Amino acid sequence: MESKVGSFNYHIESYLCDFRGKATLPLIGNFLLKAATLHAHERGFGYEAVVKDHTAWVLSRLTMEISDYPGFDEELTVETWIEDVTRYFTQRCLRFINQQGKTVGYARSIWAAIDTESRKPKDILSWRPDIGDFITTEIDCPIRKPGKVPEVGGEPKSGYTVRYSDIDINGHMNSIKYIEHTVDIFDLDIFKSKSIRSFEIMYLAECAFGDKLKLHLTEVVPGEFIVDTKKEGVSVCRCRIVWE
Amino acid sequence: MESKVGSFNYHIESYLCDFRGKATLPLIGNFLLKAATLHAHERGFGYEAVVKDHTAWVLSRLTMEISDYPGFDEELTVETWIEDVTRYFTQRCLRFINQQGKTVGYARSIWAAIDTESRKPKDILSWRPDIGDFITTEIDCPIRKPGKVPEVGGEPKSGYTVRYSDIDINGHMNSIKYIEHTVDIFDLDIFKSKSIRSFEIMYLAECAFGDKLKLHLTEVVPGEFIVDTKKEGVSVCRCRIVWE
Repeated sequence: MESKVGSFNYHIESYLCDFRGKATLPLIGNFLLKAATLHAHERGFGYEAVVKDHTAWVLSRLTMEISDYPGFDEELTVETWIEDVTRYFTQRCLRFINQQGKTVGYARSIWAAIDTESRKPKDILSWRPDIGDFITTEIDCPIRKPGKVPEVGGEPKSGYTVRYSDIDINGHMNSIKYIEHTVDIFDLDIFKSKSIRSFEIMYLAECAFGDKLKLHLTEVVPGEFIVDTKKEGVSVCRCRIVWE
Repeated sequence: MESKVGSFNYHIESYLCDFRGKATLPLIGNFLLKAATLHAHERGFGYEAVVKDHTAWVLSRLTMEISDYPGFDEELTVETWIEDVTRYFTQRCLRFINQQGKTVGYARSIWAAIDTESRKPKDILSWRPDIGDFITTEIDCPIRKPGKVPEVGGEPKSGYTVRYSDIDINGHMNSIKYIEHTVDIFDLDIFKSKSIRSFEIMYLAECAFGDKLKLHLTEVVPGEFIVDTKKEGVSVCRCRIVWE
């Protein structure tokens, strides 16, 4: 059997860095998806295996904590493992290690297995009980579990229309694109003195091409923001962002 | 000496594909940058080497022709080489080969070496004459050279404001982000029956955070479009796109 923990190395390309020469949060989010995809694939429950059962893995909740963003031309190691499997969700953890071998962050992600025809969640325990064989807690994931992010009312701060580049292979908005649009609500100035230390996203509804989304922003305590993305007044995803 | 042609393999991740399960044009554009970056790095004139001379490579013109887009979980081989070096530009060609070994496209790109302080182009022949040693024509690049794309007037079709995720390590708009925003002017329907067979971009001015850009669209002959991105009425980049 494959080891329970997968370990993958990624290179931070200069042309994918932000203006500070640092990896962006969406780029690390893409590494996270890449590691999750490969880890699942190597263990027989990746995209290609589950699509045969008309099933897709859908990211439901995600928390990331990053103490130190890797810079251009550096390597980032991403370790990932399954921490728990319940009837409707798998809980996948990740650890980020820089090229000096220092742990610079963690993530915890909650995934549902969605029937691609009915769009309803599948009972993972009866559909693929073997996934539970990969559960491990050999590495600690010392960050809080994804919780509930409150709604934000009032006038929107910004908005966008879902376009071709936002849509993924399942025909809905790409999980990382929500993060990219959310991060883009902030002015460049805050990135000059601070970094996003903690990021949490709660996905609430799928979006499709042409949807007109509005972003609502509030600062709950100094440095801690909530961004609520809404479609016709109803939240489609909510994020909590802590800058330090 | 390193061989003149670099060859790099990339995997098409399912979560980076479009709704058709195909690599997008911006994704292939990123592979192109990745291959160009690595090819230059291995030969001593990559980002890290030239930044010491306060210099950055800036993409000035690009043409791509793609007959068959690779699908998810497939491999794409990108070959790249320098076809010519003149006083102010290097001309880099690329060939795209699918996992069955079939050539599925070509690209030709024109790069300037910009002084990062004055933002003026450097004389490449006197600054780095050694780059000319890598010129080769051992592979044919049977696509037209980048030309002039005409201006489009009238009312804009769409627009966007340059945000954090659009800005690259040089502090200006990322070359591929222009392509992403340009492709996003099209309705999803056209992607269902056609693909972009030919794409040409002419970069005219650098954009910065907060710039409000307007996209003008015209169909010059059936299936052939020009998208002109303007800032305050002045073109910052123009693209010619042929669908088939």
